[in-house]
Amino acid sequence: MLDFWFDFASTYSYPAAARIRDLAMSTDTKVNFRPFLLGPIFKAQGWTTSPFNLFAAKGRYMWRDVERTCADLALPFRRPDPFPQNSLLAARVALVGLDRSSDQQSWGDQFCIEVFRAEFGQGRRIDDPATIADILAGLNVAADATLAQAQSDANKARLRVQSEEAERLGLFGAPTFVTAEGEIFWGNDRLERALLWAKRSS
Amino acid sequence: MLDFWFDFASTYSYPAAARIRDLAMSTDTKVNFRPFLLGPIFKAQGWTTSPFNLFAAKGRYMWRDVERTCADLALPFRRPDPFPQNSLLAARVALVGLDRSSDQQSWGDQFCIEVFRAEFGQGRRIDDPATIADILAGLNVAADATLAQAQSDANKARLRVQSEEAERLGLFGAPTFVTAEGEIFWGNDRLERALLWAKRSS
Repeated sequence: MLDFWFDFASTYSYPAAARIRDLAMSTDTKVNFRPFLLGPIFKAQGWTTSPFNLFAAKGRYMWRDVERTCADLALPFRRPDPFPQNSLLAARVALVGLDRSSDQQSWGDQFCIEVFRAEFGQGRRIDDPATIADILAGLNVAADATLAQAQSDANKARLRVQSEEAERLGLFGAPTFVTAEGEIFWGNDRLERALLWAKRSS
Repeated sequence: MLDFWFDFASTYSYPAAARIRDLAMSTDTKVNFRPFLLGPIFKAQGWTTSPFNLFAAKGRYMWRDVERTCADLALPFRRPDPFPQNSLLAARVALVGLDRSSDQQSWGDQFCIEVFRAEFGQGRRIDDPATIADILAGLNVAADATLAQAQSDANKARLRVQSEEAERLGLFGAPTFVTAEGEIFWGNDRLERALLWAKRSS
């Protein structure tokens, strides 16, 4: 078992989301997609936006590196404008699809992957309900009802709880992978290692 | 050809230094060890110490991750006290050993590896001239003469020039690997990828 924590605004979470299911299957590991909000965690450090915007050299490097990483994986890549995107709506909708207590919800993982593709592959705005509705429609999910459910107080609270759990775990960036034993691996380039650890302890 | 940029105070540069020569040999790539000072680069971002000290969650993660990384590589690991160590003296001495214009200097790479081992494997202080002298003696290098040469104005200037080059390249952390074409890879976990790129373009 491996928890895959990510924020939809996170650049390196895009290749991680694209890779994780096949890699996990090859090691027979169950993966839980766990969207959360990095904004409050950054804010607690005094950062009002992404560190890639605050620290110019790091930002320049990141854009080149993500471009290279996506090219290696044959993933389309476009730099989102603005960056970071507001990931609140996408995260709320994802939680509806990822709800394990409901039998009919089986589209959560695929929804997450499609949101990343729309954002970083096609340059679409993920804070636009039309983008989210298109993705839901493509998955044969009723868009209006799902968007309404996503914006319910109960679901908003679930995202807050999930984000608080991320903070309690000590997460400070995305993607981050957490094994059942609490071993934390930060970064797309640590996914293989995280899966190895998850396997070792299973 | 691959430039290996590092600061002797950098935790992840320790496993990188321990791994790089064998890995580079297996891909037939020449590696240039290039010590520099991260302090001025951090200072320009408003950081007065290592970001691992400034950002608690990131620091906690790093110590666990470096411990794990070293265990995987069967490298001894001890958390330096204080952290970060002052890397100025070690960097100056390294530059003497790495001087390509001098025929008799062939101990630079090994000196760097030994400094990391003393600091992170044995918990020794690398700002102590006695530590540096011990390492030099172990390499059959005249310690007194070398320490004097390291502290000469000409050599101090060389380290400043090298650190300014790092800043001009846009380096913001260590280890960082730079190919002949200027492709930059940041982090011990990107070493294999950097070597692949260096090979591609050679």
